[in-house]
Amino acid sequence: MESRSLAVAVEPGGVPPHVAEAVRAGGGRTVPPAEAEALIWVGKGPDGLSQVLEQGRGITWIQLPSAGIEGYSALIDERHIWTCAKGIYARAVAEHALALALAGLHRLPQLARAHTWQKTVCRDLSGSTVAILGGGGIARCLLDLIAPFDTTAIVVRRHPEPIPGANRVLGMDALHEVLGEADVVVLALALTAETERIIGAPQLQAMKSDAWLVNVGRGKLIDTDALVRVLRERNIGGAALDVTDPEPLPEGHPLWIFDNCIITPHCANPPPLERERFKELIRENVQRRIAGEPLKGLVDPKLGY
Amino acid sequence: MESRSLAVAVEPGGVPPHVAEAVRAGGGRTVPPAEAEALIWVGKGPDGLSQVLEQGRGITWIQLPSAGIEGYSALIDERHIWTCAKGIYARAVAEHALALALAGLHRLPQLARAHTWQKTVCRDLSGSTVAILGGGGIARCLLDLIAPFDTTAIVVRRHPEPIPGANRVLGMDALHEVLGEADVVVLALALTAETERIIGAPQLQAMKSDAWLVNVGRGKLIDTDALVRVLRERNIGGAALDVTDPEPLPEGHPLWIFDNCIITPHCANPPPLERERFKELIRENVQRRIAGEPLKGLVDPKLGY
Repeated sequence: MESRSLAVAVEPGGVPPHVAEAVRAGGGRTVPPAEAEALIWVGKGPDGLSQVLEQGRGITWIQLPSAGIEGYSALIDERHIWTCAKGIYARAVAEHALALALAGLHRLPQLARAHTWQKTVCRDLSGSTVAILGGGGIARCLLDLIAPFDTTAIVVRRHPEPIPGANRVLGMDALHEVLGEADVVVLALALTAETERIIGAPQLQAMKSDAWLVNVGRGKLIDTDALVRVLRERNIGGAALDVTDPEPLPEGHPLWIFDNCIITPHCANPPPLERERFKELIRENVQRRIAGEPLKGLVDPKLGY
Repeated sequence: MESRSLAVAVEPGGVPPHVAEAVRAGGGRTVPPAEAEALIWVGKGPDGLSQVLEQGRGITWIQLPSAGIEGYSALIDERHIWTCAKGIYARAVAEHALALALAGLHRLPQLARAHTWQKTVCRDLSGSTVAILGGGGIARCLLDLIAPFDTTAIVVRRHPEPIPGANRVLGMDALHEVLGEADVVVLALALTAETERIIGAPQLQAMKSDAWLVNVGRGKLIDTDALVRVLRERNIGGAALDVTDPEPLPEGHPLWIFDNCIITPHCANPPPLERERFKELIRENVQRRIAGEPLKGLVDPKLGY
């Protein structure tokens, strides 16, 4: 007996070989949108997606290529099943967040620009308090990586259920208080209407004067103008940002200049790894869809992530 | 019955209050050298130490203040018991080494100096091969810190006994081969006649073209001129150096300029921590000396560390 296959469209443009391979490995076959039951979207953004869905009336499940999907919010509906790549890059992003946090405490952004030997006092992550905003895959992976450091790890998230490795998990109403305690604040949450500019002037003012802010989520989580002000006035230790608002950060922007700030150009996921992990996710979700099992990276249309 | 005390000289200069407190806490009392059984040396280097030992004919044990003691090698003899501060700063130094290794792989030295948004490919410590030269306290602490990363950790040391957390422990004769495998090479060994310039032109040439060299040992472990050449020719990924030769590194030295090099000015031990840990070591060693127990940080006069 032949096992059931799944008719999968891969759009826009031609089917990339690694995606075709993953669809086949999961038990699917690639077809045009009009014949498809599922859609793997490989575009850089949502342009053209609604047209493909109009052609593909039989499509019931859409796999999006990124972890953050705020660009698709106008399209995400309850008539389709939507999955995204959340979690699959979490380990790499968590490593980047740790690299940025250690760099800040050990004064590497300043020291990389120095041209003379000057007495410098570094600080240790060991013994410090780390606040992580967001309780998803990045937070969990970061908690694993900092486990050997003797830190106090506090996670702030919408629903304060316990997370392994976190000393405390608190709701969003505790944010202000936590910001006053933390030596490092890591932003690792999805961008939604509720989280946009979650770090503005009042939150930056609540931070300790030597604390570092690390953003590996989305640029718009921070009010950039307010951040520029506190960095200029040296009211926090510094900021290490893999994502910015605007992005790309334009030439001449003050964040490029300040020595208490380091920008990494949205490079927390190394592309070869990204491709490998996405391929594996497609294979697994195609397989799960055929078997009728729950898909990975399921998007909640109400929450928007 | 009164328990035995220990007569301890603290030289040169006046007795720092934290040292006096540690001597007392260990059950000792501070006395001039002529009356002393033990000497806590708090000088920046060996100047004046031989004169103090001439005055203190009753001194049988000398505690040195640093972990690296190559400056004292002409004085260290088998007539006295010598202890140094090896190991007590190891955790902080290991954290700094990890900060430097992650910074190198994640291209932070380059990115800290960038003023424009450019496509950048970071590399992950996870999945990489880390070679640690030296099997002392720093190596052990670093192995603890990288345990959650999925690395292959290779320790190269004089005596290749197993170390917890190391995938392989090899003798110095395997150095060349290991250098060809490693993505990160961390120098964490004592400076002796045998280890001086252990990383010269042939060793640098043996390294992978994208590997990072991290030095938290002593500057003279590396042939600086040879390092300048490979960095200029971009034959390795880069170098992250907490110690240099010469030290301090003079203004205008090429290592300040290269964007594939980051210098941290011998700041791996934060001074407040250093004082606290040294105080604890004195207290414990005074107590052990009174009880006739083996001292911590014992120097082998033949090995010179």
